[in-house]
Amino acid sequence: MNDAINHLLQILTSLPGIGRKSAQRIVFHLLKNPQQTQILIASLTNALTRIHFCPVCFNFTENELCSICTDKKRDRSTVCVVEEPADVLVVEQTGQYRGTYHVLGGVISPLNDIHPENLHLQELVSRISREKITEVIIATNPTVEGEATAVYIYTLLKPLGTRVTRIARGLPVGSDLELADKETIQRALEGRREM
Amino acid sequence: MNDAINHLLQILTSLPGIGRKSAQRIVFHLLKNPQQTQILIASLTNALTRIHFCPVCFNFTENELCSICTDKKRDRSTVCVVEEPADVLVVEQTGQYRGTYHVLGGVISPLNDIHPENLHLQELVSRISREKITEVIIATNPTVEGEATAVYIYTLLKPLGTRVTRIARGLPVGSDLELADKETIQRALEGRREM
Repeated sequence: MNDAINHLLQILTSLPGIGRKSAQRIVFHLLKNPQQTQILIASLTNALTRIHFCPVCFNFTENELCSICTDKKRDRSTVCVVEEPADVLVVEQTGQYRGTYHVLGGVISPLNDIHPENLHLQELVSRISREKITEVIIATNPTVEGEATAVYIYTLLKPLGTRVTRIARGLPVGSDLELADKETIQRALEGRREM
Repeated sequence: MNDAINHLLQILTSLPGIGRKSAQRIVFHLLKNPQQTQILIASLTNALTRIHFCPVCFNFTENELCSICTDKKRDRSTVCVVEEPADVLVVEQTGQYRGTYHVLGGVISPLNDIHPENLHLQELVSRISREKITEVIIATNPTVEGEATAVYIYTLLKPLGTRVTRIARGLPVGSDLELADKETIQRALEGRREM
């Protein structure tokens, strides 16, 4: 095999969700369509050059501030705290949330050498003091690390007097009780509400 | 959403095997790892610049001729005809074939405006006259178009006096007779051999 092809295959397989077979298909597709490859290179270069973190919420943006932070129609009193910029997109896709966001840039994970000071937590505390934030919704993932980070944030923010909430953990819509794990059912019972 | 991110998402979803969700994961991964993105850009640019078609067999190569055409240990009397460079890789992975290849660059497909003159068929005819080729193995896909192309090649090469064979179509190893389609079973019966 060619070195150039092998190198490209190696990089592509290191991307999330791309296995050896998909990488091969993509490489041959790109080599067959050099124009599309040129466009991909230009688009990647453009993204690298223009996209940076919003200094307020740490979401990705091409402008000084991100489109959500500059949107006058958003409710500035509520902040949704998420792990990654990708999570902002997921919440936005529901079309239901009208507040702003705060991206942590990860979760506390001592095993991976990620400590509270590596996340954008001080910036969150400053925002709460500076802006008139009345509710912080913690939307970290319902994983061990996400839950631990949520507890850490709760402890950090409680003295500030803001309302701190956590998104519900329970049975996903369309799922089957029979297939749910013990912990999810436990959380679903704990989080029960009047009908 | 950002224009730069949207543009990148759009290009990634146009690649084979990448859906909207995978594209999102890849984009956020690349933005989080700008160094890896730089390496990807460099590798794509390198591949575009250095890789071209081998003038003998039309496989991809970085050198003047491809590694198979220059390999003195390959049996030059047998040529395996495939549709795409990716197919060369697939046959090579078996480690069983010791002949050379000839990549057509597609299949005859009038609906897609691909006619015999758009494939590297004349080059195949010249190779047979020029090199001492005793067998041409047609390994186009067992699809309607692949079969039609195989028949076309057979008609084209027969007058040259070379042996022209077609790879066997039958039940894939590890599969189940019950799940095979009618045509595959028919081909498997036609292609039966003494045990």
